[in-house]
Formats: sequence, structure tokens, C-alpha cells
Amino acid sequence: MRYYQFPKADEVRIDGGFFGHYMDIMADKALPYQWKVLNGELDGNPTVRNFYIAAGLETGSFSGVPYQDTDLAKWIDAVGCSLAGRKNEELERTADKVISAIVKAQDPDGYLDTYYQLVCPEKKWTDPESHELYCFGHMIEAGISYYEGTGKRALLDAACRLADHVCRVFGPGENQIHGYRGHEIIEMALVRLASITGRKQYEQLAEYFITARRDHPDLFYQDSRREGNPLDYGCWGWGDPERESSSYEHVTGHAVRAMYLYSGMADVAREMNDPAMQNHCAELFRDVTESQMYVTGGIGTTSVLEAYTYPYDLPNGTMYAETCASIGLCFFAQRLLRFQNRSSYADVMERCLCNILPAAVAQDGKHYFYVNPLEVNEEACRKSPLKTHVKPVRQPWYECACCPPNLARMLLSLPRYLYSWAEDRINIHLYAQSEAKLCPGGREITIEQQTEYPLHGEVRLRVRCGVSAPLTVALRIPDWCSDYSVMLNGTIATGKMEDGYLLLERDWEGNAEIVLQMKMAPVWLRANRNVREDCGKAVISRGPVIYCIEEKDNGELLQDIEADYRVPLTETVRRDVDGFLRYTAVIACGSRSAEQSGHRNCLYYPLTEDRRTVSVTAIPYCIWGERTAGEMTVWINI
Amino acid sequence: MRYYQFPKADEVRIDGGFFGHYMDIMADKALPYQWKVLNGELDGNPTVRNFYIAAGLETGSFSGVPYQDTDLAKWIDAVGCSLAGRKNEELERTADKVISAIVKAQDPDGYLDTYYQLVCPEKKWTDPESHELYCFGHMIEAGISYYEGTGKRALLDAACRLADHVCRVFGPGENQIHGYRGHEIIEMALVRLASITGRKQYEQLAEYFITARRDHPDLFYQDSRREGNPLDYGCWGWGDPERESSSYEHVTGHAVRAMYLYSGMADVAREMNDPAMQNHCAELFRDVTESQMYVTGGIGTTSVLEAYTYPYDLPNGTMYAETCASIGLCFFAQRLLRFQNRSSYADVMERCLCNILPAAVAQDGKHYFYVNPLEVNEEACRKSPLKTHVKPVRQPWYECACCPPNLARMLLSLPRYLYSWAEDRINIHLYAQSEAKLCPGGREITIEQQTEYPLHGEVRLRVRCGVSAPLTVALRIPDWCSDYSVMLNGTIATGKMEDGYLLLERDWEGNAEIVLQMKMAPVWLRANRNVREDCGKAVISRGPVIYCIEEKDNGELLQDIEADYRVPLTETVRRDVDGFLRYTAVIACGSRSAEQSGHRNCLYYPLTEDRRTVSVTAIPYCIWGERTAGEMTVWINI
Repeated sequence: MRYYQFPKADEVRIDGGFFGHYMDIMADKALPYQWKVLNGELDGNPTVRNFYIAAGLETGSFSGVPYQDTDLAKWIDAVGCSLAGRKNEELERTADKVISAIVKAQDPDGYLDTYYQLVCPEKKWTDPESHELYCFGHMIEAGISYYEGTGKRALLDAACRLADHVCRVFGPGENQIHGYRGHEIIEMALVRLASITGRKQYEQLAEYFITARRDHPDLFYQDSRREGNPLDYGCWGWGDPERESSSYEHVTGHAVRAMYLYSGMADVAREMNDPAMQNHCAELFRDVTESQMYVTGGIGTTSVLEAYTYPYDLPNGTMYAETCASIGLCFFAQRLLRFQNRSSYADVMERCLCNILPAAVAQDGKHYFYVNPLEVNEEACRKSPLKTHVKPVRQPWYECACCPPNLARMLLSLPRYLYSWAEDRINIHLYAQSEAKLCPGGREITIEQQTEYPLHGEVRLRVRCGVSAPLTVALRIPDWCSDYSVMLNGTIATGKMEDGYLLLERDWEGNAEIVLQMKMAPVWLRANRNVREDCGKAVISRGPVIYCIEEKDNGELLQDIEADYRVPLTETVRRDVDGFLRYTAVIACGSRSAEQSGHRNCLYYPLTEDRRTVSVTAIPYCIWGERTAGEMTVWINI
Repeated sequence: MRYYQFPKADEVRIDGGFFGHYMDIMADKALPYQWKVLNGELDGNPTVRNFYIAAGLETGSFSGVPYQDTDLAKWIDAVGCSLAGRKNEELERTADKVISAIVKAQDPDGYLDTYYQLVCPEKKWTDPESHELYCFGHMIEAGISYYEGTGKRALLDAACRLADHVCRVFGPGENQIHGYRGHEIIEMALVRLASITGRKQYEQLAEYFITARRDHPDLFYQDSRREGNPLDYGCWGWGDPERESSSYEHVTGHAVRAMYLYSGMADVAREMNDPAMQNHCAELFRDVTESQMYVTGGIGTTSVLEAYTYPYDLPNGTMYAETCASIGLCFFAQRLLRFQNRSSYADVMERCLCNILPAAVAQDGKHYFYVNPLEVNEEACRKSPLKTHVKPVRQPWYECACCPPNLARMLLSLPRYLYSWAEDRINIHLYAQSEAKLCPGGREITIEQQTEYPLHGEVRLRVRCGVSAPLTVALRIPDWCSDYSVMLNGTIATGKMEDGYLLLERDWEGNAEIVLQMKMAPVWLRANRNVREDCGKAVISRGPVIYCIEEKDNGELLQDIEADYRVPLTETVRRDVDGFLRYTAVIACGSRSAEQSGHRNCLYYPLTEDRRTVSVTAIPYCIWGERTAGEMTVWINI
């Protein structure tokens, strides 16, 4: 079985273009802003202070939610990713200082969770639903990223002490806790820590957690029931062990937790070389993305337990579609690519990275979406009990603020997602203005991408190699692309298509230029007819970019618009979003009910043809709400 | 100001036809079935037993919900209505027997509420949210109806003792409770009792309750807050007294309670001859029916507090649309007609009576809807947290069983709704096969209606009067009807149209025949464009009957169907619903996605024209789910 390696953050540099723009927002605007928030400089947020108190450097008591620590851990993680590519002394000083407080806050036995340390130390590891392992896991991830970005070991060493502590507390041994805890991430963190430290025991503990969930899926659930807790996080992808082992059902439960679990499962399946578990992961991914994913890359249908419901249930106004869930979907897709190089995984990453994820942050880096609606109007958000969780504009922060720093670490770690390689092959998963230095089979190869993708479909790749390098360069042909050409050093290149990748095999010694031209034009997409909520509707897309229509361009009552999909779509380039790049707006033809209808005040009236033609302007979903607040919808009546 | 009088149940007899059919179901099937349920013969329901225990005739303790008494009160009410028109000795014996137990259960001071009597007598009248006045009110209504239907006074006398008790307990006096209680109905009951007994004090107490709610709308609300109760029943139609008196807002709050309050308010506004309150009632009605009413006559948008949300928010799959709410809407409409003879009120009654209300009971009289969906699929009801309150098939009973006996008393009291009169005028509000004996200005006039309405649009009215009777007969021309003719004794009759009624003025001495021909053809209706959920959709109606499409006729995935409204609709007569009359099915032309789409497993794919033409069969909403379970939708994509 072939496994692919992904780059570390410092092996690829994304600079400019669409993805570079969002990395700039995160590095230059979001990270300083988020620090101010976490440090309590804006509204008294207690995150940093909790650590200072736990470290004995300040007096006071804990405040915030039990998983408050993770906000800071994610921020440090993001800073580490950012410093790998772009130096920033001030940011590094700030991070170093808070890391020293964190390290001081850690108990001698390695335990570190300021909520338990300050509020109820006697309850450590007693609550089956606690977020302790979630806090531990994020801090381990932070330690690794900060080490990778700066070479500094303080937090990495603390991370190892955290992991060692967990290794002692959990496991099959006599005096260990047999089981697991609520929110996942520790699994991914342990596998990553094992890889960087070479300590196999971390990997084994990750496997223990995954298989414990597989073999005792009701452990947590039973504990919850025993406590009288109404939470039911549902099926985690493994069949009920009391039924047939083939009793795989659709993915249910908490959307974020499911993605984090499956990502950890994919890590373990790869490290343990377990083909059955690998295939199970692939099935889970297929289920989510073929029947429970919004066209924007959002997942999580309902705010009730932040969960999936059932296949093809994708309501556009009441969804959850949490930013963190789509981040988790990217984690999962990337981990699948490590053992199954299929373009469908990268297609989903790209869907998230071009749509829901950039949509979740404003151009100022200071406003965020937690829930990412596909249809919104402000009155409904205020007055419908089904939509009060939906915000019609990006918010400065959230009480449960998992998303903003998670988005920062996701977007700043984008360099990790572009390529993967084995000894004889390099896979190009994402197209982005960038430079990379990779070492498949020990040969240093640089790849430079010049592209404005996804603004256009042209990608120029310069491949340079100083020594003889016979290998396959696999170019992903995206799912949206049905018309493309590839030139290699000026002549048309052909190659085998394999799982959505075009394979270019040759000796790459010297300089080579690949020009990939993907024809990019706006098209109407329809949803599978099983998606009842989208029947009679369509969405505009252009390349990987999903479009929406806004009140700003089209007036209020967007649902009154009916588009005529038979009239060809046209494009126009715009620059009207402050701080954003130029973008392509798409113009469709449609109709609206006539202004002067005689039935204006009637609730129901005989259908007549009194409609007037209007032009309908669509913009990329990722910049909705950037110009002004107002109605928005992704799906348009046709 | 002119006031109109409505008939008592024994002054009009409905026999045969659409409405007669539903009265038969209620009288012959539902009342015996409901008795068995309430008497605990089917599943141990405790309703009747609670009264026997309270009367000292059985031992045991109370069970059920605090308002359990009302289920029996409504049943007796319905029996009284039924006996007015059709004798049934067994039913009467059963009712007499349980009434004697009820009377025995009443405390010497008139108090009667078995929950408080048996569970917590020390808490009588202490809970501001209690259902005591709701129980009292329904028992008073039962006493009146049973007296009207049988001439027997036992329960009427008990009702007077109940009312006297409430008169002592509530009011502005020093030792009285200043305020009101949770669920309304006492107001309507007191006004009706005053009318039948001539005791003005009951009417004054009703006025006290209404004006207390107007002047202290936050009394109940504050009490709730003080108790830490999260319920907020919202605005009751009166502006906040601390703001301007003109601060009227949209109707909000609990849909059923609102209708019961407004109905009582209309009673008081009439009896107290208060034009401002009358106009306020008219405004409330207009607001509900012009912006918050489903096309079926359903009201109540959300299951959260069973409430309205905001104008034009009418989702079709998550609605509440409780049967009782539309019953209350009929109460309200009829009361408005007593002082404002506008056809819009009767149009709404007819909408409810031809659609949502008959839909709420099965042909066997033994299965009911509480929530009346406009769109349903069984999987969603099981798996979507937003739809678990929706049942895809009629249920034998409900834990909160307010609807089944309420529907019985509503449909069996239909004779009260057909006509109204003042000295010089008779208004004909509803068309139904029937005979009536009315006495406007003391002259006895009989009116016989021969019609299969709403199956057809022809109504033959025979008017007979033995003495000189110069008066206006006002025929309602329904809102759906734009093409009609009226013949009077064989010649075309003309008359002034006034508020939706055609006025025929003459001396009606002797026999006269009026033939009203309303052209009835199926049409497509569209919703006001402000109803976002219905944009891009239309509904089929035929006369006052709203249609739906079912899986049974059209296969699964009804949302995949797109109707072509440009192709004329056709009709076909069917008889395939066991126990139901023949009915008119409507056939439309539409399309569905092609069976063999290459994108069958794709979640999103480029829109193509691969659709196949299908015929779409619609049936009256009132008989949905009668043939087999399955998907149903009222609004069809166009």
C-alpha cells in the first residue's frame, strides 16, 4: 500500500492570489485582533488571564467556558503556522510570553486544563463528557505547530508532558481509565506528536481511543444517560456492536466531533496500516459528502445538538453549517489523501476553501461567522425560533468562540494541503500562487505555481530539479472541470487519468513548464432530486466558486426572483469589496412579480403571468455580506 | 350600530352533503369512540374516572394533565350540539350519567376542577398560569350546549354555580383576585351564559377579564417571570400600555390562546357596544388572515410555544397549524360577523371548514391530526428535530388531547354558523344542504338549501314565509368566486353588492326559489410574494377547496415535480376514499427529473433539461392520508 506524505508548513509558501489573500488577512489582521480579544483587551475575555492565574502570575478565579483554554491553543497553533512562512517578531514575542505562562501553569504531572485546575481540581478525569482531552489535544497541536514554525521547544516539551500524562491515565491497564472523553482532537494530535517525536506510544494511545469508540460506542452515551444528560451524540460511524458488524448506517451526531473523530481514525488507519479501517473512513467520507453536505462545503443540518439529521436533508435557512465542521472536513479529506489519492477528497477541500471557509471571516479579520447560512434574512434571524442561531452579519466574537482561531490555524496551515508525495510521485491537489520545495525519494524538487485561480482557470507550474528525477507529477482535474488542456514545455501533454488526476510521467531533471488551462465559465448547478429543499432551485457556480445573490444587488425578497436558466450567464469583473481582490460577478436573466400587482395585499390569489424581467447579479458566496447587510440566498428559484 | 344574531343549534339542521357528512362522522363515529377513550375503555385514559373520584363515587387518585377535565367538557358540549339535531338515546343516557357525576364532584362553593380538588386543593387560584378558568369555561360551554340540545338543566345549573364562583373570586373588589389566568375560554363562556340566563354579571366579568388583559398585558407575563417560567406568550394584540395607545403590533403569541382571547374580546366588544374594541378585533383578524394564515386555514407558525412568528413567515414543513387554532379562528370570525357583516370573515370560516378542519379527522372518526402539515414525509417526522411534532398519519389520540373533542363540538355546532339575522335582514354565510327556521323581526321564515357545495357551485334556496316579510336576503359571494349568476323565481336577479354579500330586497311572503350558480373550476393560486417559503410554488384550488398532491397518486419525492401551470387543469370524479363522498380530483401537467440521469448519485451537478413529462394528480387536502400513508404536499413547484 502506498502512503503519501504532506508538506510541513515551511516547505510550501503561498504568496498572493486568492488563498494568499486569506492567509494575509489571517496573519496580518486576524492574529493581532484575536490576541487582543483573548488577552481581554477588548471585552474582558478571560482566556489568557486564566493561564496567568493558573501559573500563579496573577490572582483571581477562572472564568469562561470549560473549554476556554482551546481558544488560546488554537491561536498559538495559528501563530506557529504563520511564522513558518512569514516572520513577525512582535507576534512571536507575544506568543513566547504567553507560552511561558502556559508552561508554568502545567502541573508537575503534566496535567493542564485551567478550568479543572482552578475550579474543581478534585474532579479531574471524572466527567465522561469533559473537554479535558479536547484542551489537551489542542495544546499538543499548538506545541507542534509552534515548534515547526519557530524551532522553539518549550511548548512542544509541554505537549509531550501532556501526552505522557494522558498515556498514564487512559488505556487498557489495570489502574487506567478504560474509555474516552467527549470532544475529539486528541487522536489527531497524538499521531502528529508521535510522528514528530518518534514516540510510538502516542500513536498507540490514539489507536486505543479510536478502537475504544468503535468497540464501545455506547460508553460515552451510557455515561451521559446515567447522568441524566439529554445529549445524544448519535452514531459515530461504526455499527452498533450488538448488531451485525456490517450494520454501518449514515453518519449522524455532532458534525464537528464526527469530523475530528474520523480524521483521527484516518490517521490511525494509516499508521496502523489497517485497510478495513481505511475503507471505513472512505465510506464515511462518501456518505457525508454525497448526501449531507451543502453546496458551499457546509456540513451539519440542525442546530439541535449541532448534528446531521439524515441523507439529503439540507434545509437552507435553518442549517448549522458550523465553520469548524468544514475545517474538520478538510482535515478528514487531507488524511484520506494520504492513503487513497482520489480527486474527490481534494475537490471537497477545495469546495470548503473556496466557499464556506473564506466566507467565515470578514476582510478586516475582525468579524466571523460561526453558522454559515445558505439563505438569510435579518427578520427571520430575530423572530423565527428555528433561525435564532443564524446571524445575518459576521460577529466580532462568540461566547463559544471555537471558530475564529480554528479558522486562523486552518487557513494559515494551507501550505500543508497543496501537495503530497511518495517516492516516485508528486500529487498536486490545490492550485494556488505558491512556491514549494519538496523531496520525493530524496531528490529536491521545486514547484512554482503562477495562477490567479480560482479567478481564472490558468495555472503555470515551473518544475525544477537539479538531478535526474524520473517520477509522476499528478495534476488534479477538479470535479467542476470538463474542458481543459495541458501543455508541457510548449507541447500538448497527454497522460493517463487515474482517480481524477492526470499523470505526467517523465524525468523532470532541469526546468519544465506545465500550463494547465481549465475552461472556467459560470454554470447552473442543480441538487440531487432527493434534496427536497433545493428542488425547483439552482445555484450558480464558476469553477470551484459557489455564488449567491444578495439584496444589495437584487433588491429585497430574493425568493421572489425566478431565474431563467435557458438564457446564458454573463460575467463582469468587479472591485467593490473593500480590501478584497477583484472578482467575477455573474449576471443571469430572471423575473420578479410585477410591482403593481392588484393582489399586493392578498395572501393568496390566482396565479397570473404578471411578472417583469430583471437581471440577477450573483457574487461569490465567500464575500456575501461584505458590502452591506441584507438578504442573501445561494439557491435561486428557477 | 346593527348587530346580527346567529341561530341556536336546533334552529338549523344540516343533513347530507359535505358538511352533513362530517357531522355524521362526528355524531355517529367520533362521539361513541371518544367516549370509550375518555372513559378509559381503550387505553386507561383517566378523564371520566377523575370526575368519579372527585364525586366520591370511585376511589383512587387523579391522573392526566392539569386540564384533563376539558376533554370531557368538550365531549358533553359536542353531545349537546349533536342531540339538538339528531336524537340518540344511548348517547344521551351516557351523557346524563356522567353529568350527574360531574355535578356531584362540584364543591359546595361551585368550584370544579378535579386536578386541584384531588391533587392540591390548597393551591386553588394560586397559580397565575393555571388552567382552572379554562376548565371552568369549557364546563360552562358544555352546560349551555347540553341544555340547548336536551332542555336538561343539571349541567347548566352547575355552570351557573361555576360562574358565580368565578364572579366572587375575580374582579376589582377588595377581596377579589385582580387579574386573570392562563388559557382563555371563560370570556366566551360567560358571555354566552349571560345571554341564556339573562344574568348581566357574567358579561361584566367577561369584560373585566378582557380589559384586565388589555390594561395589564404584562400581569401574567410578569407572574411567569417571577416563577422562573420561560414561557412568553407574547403580545395579545393590545399595544404596550406604557407606549402610545396606537402601538398596535402584529399578532404574536400562542395561536390557540390568541384566537380564544380575541373571540371573547369580540363578544365583549359587541355586548358592551364598544366600537373601538370592535375595530381592534377587526384589525387583529385582518392581521392574522392577511399575513399569518396558511392556505388551508391553518394558523400558528412554530411549535416553539405553539405560536405565531412574524408576518408572512409560513414554512410548510415545520408549522404548527393546530386544529384547535383554526377552530378558534372560526369562533373569532363568527363573532366578528355579529357586528361587521363582511364576507371576508365567512370566507375564512369556509376556508377552515372545507380544508384544515375536515382534514383533522379520519373517515372512521377514530383518528385525528393535532398538527396539520402542508408538506410531510415520514422520514423527516422521525429524523428532523424541526419536525418531530408533525405526525405523518392521523393518530388515535394524543396525550394533550384538546383537538379531537374540540373538533367534535365545532363540527356538530356547524348549524350555528350558516345564517345570521337582524330585524330586516338575513345573511347567508355558508352553503350547505340544510333546513332552517329563523325569526327575523318575529316573522318565521324557513330556508331550505339544496346543494352539493363544495363539490359543485350550484345552490338552490327555497325561502318560505307565511306572512308579509319585507326584508333583505344577503347571499355571500365567496372570495374564490368571480363568475356567478343568481335566479329568483326563474328570472335573473340583481342586487347591490355590500361587503361581499349580494343583497336581495323584496317581500318574501309565500314561496321563493333562489338559484345561485357559482362557476367552479380548478385554478392555480399563488402566495403573496412576501411568503418566501411559497415563492416558486403554487397550489391548486377549486372553489373553497384547497388541493394537495400525494405519493399515492404521484410517486415519492413530490418536490421533484414541477407543474406547468400554463397547461389547463382537468377534473375527474373519484370515489376511492372509503366512507367518503365522491370528490373531484384535479389533473395537472408537470415534469420530473429523468429516471436514468447520469448524475443520480451526485449531490450537485450541472443543470440540464433531462426531465420527463408527467401528469400530476391532486386531491382535496381534507382527505389527505385517507387512502394510504405517504408523502404529501400542498404547495407544488412550478
